[in-house]
Amino acid sequence: MNEKQTNTINRPFIFLNAAVSADGKISTKERKQVKISGDNDFERVDELKKESDGVMVGIGTVLADDPSLTIKSENRKKYRKNNGLDENPARIVVDSNGRTPIDADIFKKGEGKRVIAVSKCAPEKKIKTLKEKADIIVAGNDKVDLKILVEKLKDMGIEKLMVEGGSNLNWSLLSLKLVDEIHAFIGNIIIGGSTAPSLVGGSGFPETDMLKLKLVDFEQMDDGLLVRWQVEKQ
Amino acid sequence: MNEKQTNTINRPFIFLNAAVSADGKISTKERKQVKISGDNDFERVDELKKESDGVMVGIGTVLADDPSLTIKSENRKKYRKNNGLDENPARIVVDSNGRTPIDADIFKKGEGKRVIAVSKCAPEKKIKTLKEKADIIVAGNDKVDLKILVEKLKDMGIEKLMVEGGSNLNWSLLSLKLVDEIHAFIGNIIIGGSTAPSLVGGSGFPETDMLKLKLVDFEQMDDGLLVRWQVEKQ
Repeated sequence: MNEKQTNTINRPFIFLNAAVSADGKISTKERKQVKISGDNDFERVDELKKESDGVMVGIGTVLADDPSLTIKSENRKKYRKNNGLDENPARIVVDSNGRTPIDADIFKKGEGKRVIAVSKCAPEKKIKTLKEKADIIVAGNDKVDLKILVEKLKDMGIEKLMVEGGSNLNWSLLSLKLVDEIHAFIGNIIIGGSTAPSLVGGSGFPETDMLKLKLVDFEQMDDGLLVRWQVEKQ
Repeated sequence: MNEKQTNTINRPFIFLNAAVSADGKISTKERKQVKISGDNDFERVDELKKESDGVMVGIGTVLADDPSLTIKSENRKKYRKNNGLDENPARIVVDSNGRTPIDADIFKKGEGKRVIAVSKCAPEKKIKTLKEKADIIVAGNDKVDLKILVEKLKDMGIEKLMVEGGSNLNWSLLSLKLVDEIHAFIGNIIIGGSTAPSLVGGSGFPETDMLKLKLVDFEQMDDGLLVRWQVEKQ
């Protein structure tokens, strides 16, 4: 993929949001979530969801944490309703092989659109079942083609997309230069562990071509630090 | 080890210092160092070295980076000399099996004391060779017993010990509750990679017993963020 192709993608504004430990981890090596952030950060994240048209996670996050990805505050849900929106932003799972459990919390909790993005490898039978609960987007042969996916999401009206991890989805999006900003709450704990997932996993950038960011702002929040970076256009 | 035992250790003030990427990595997955920090951070680290009695690294860092661990500024070296100190703080390698190369830069560059800490497993012959270039501390049966080591360093007059990584040594010291502070320069790049070493490696803390920090201060430095945490006494 050359730069020109990247730039011509008609996609939403995409930002990653994560709470990380002081050593850059998003969970323990057993992929257990740990309480990293506090009350103010919780509200910040809920507000970001309110302002987003879609919230995206990878299948690993669904299988490990089973998040509902709903907005928690009644006022924020009401605000969206009053503005002619669904209570919750569209919840999108990147799930190449169609492994999202039928009883996942994203299906059970809250109103609003669900989107499961699969590749052509996902079993037809499972897709048929998922179709009863979600819009299905097929993109890519053996794994979800994220460039096609984000274009399709834009076509669906998603202008602002929040990505809530995990480590592999963050990597995939960053390595394809599909991310505009990274918001990280850096909490006051050390998780440790050479195999604990960190903010960005995958295969990593080559030594000579690291992804460059621009520090936009930072502030103390609760007991931690909230940092916002822009991804530099290359 | 119970808490009482930890607290009775007569050891130096110990702080970890590291430059990390925005995703918490200290090097690429090939363990190649990447330029993370800028000129002001370089000066900050040189000043920290000036004020330290010892600078410690793990053998992994010696083998991967071959750092000299010397102070770079002539004025700082002069300052130390004028105060009756060696030009450089004592350079200490935690090297359970005595693998420090005889031609490592810590031996070739700069004046001052070198200490190689080995376990009883280190080959006698290699220890004999290393003895010509460094003080040898034997502590622990198959790996260096860090509690004994830091006590011995204190006995040698080391009151302030700077630890420059890597990931495994940071973990070992933190998991033994031997660290007082963590200083991290968080640079404006993403390294990525699920196997790239992060600030704290090792086996990681159990889900129910994460290491707690206290955010002490933070400021922008160069294009990144300098953050200082204290390790909470437990």
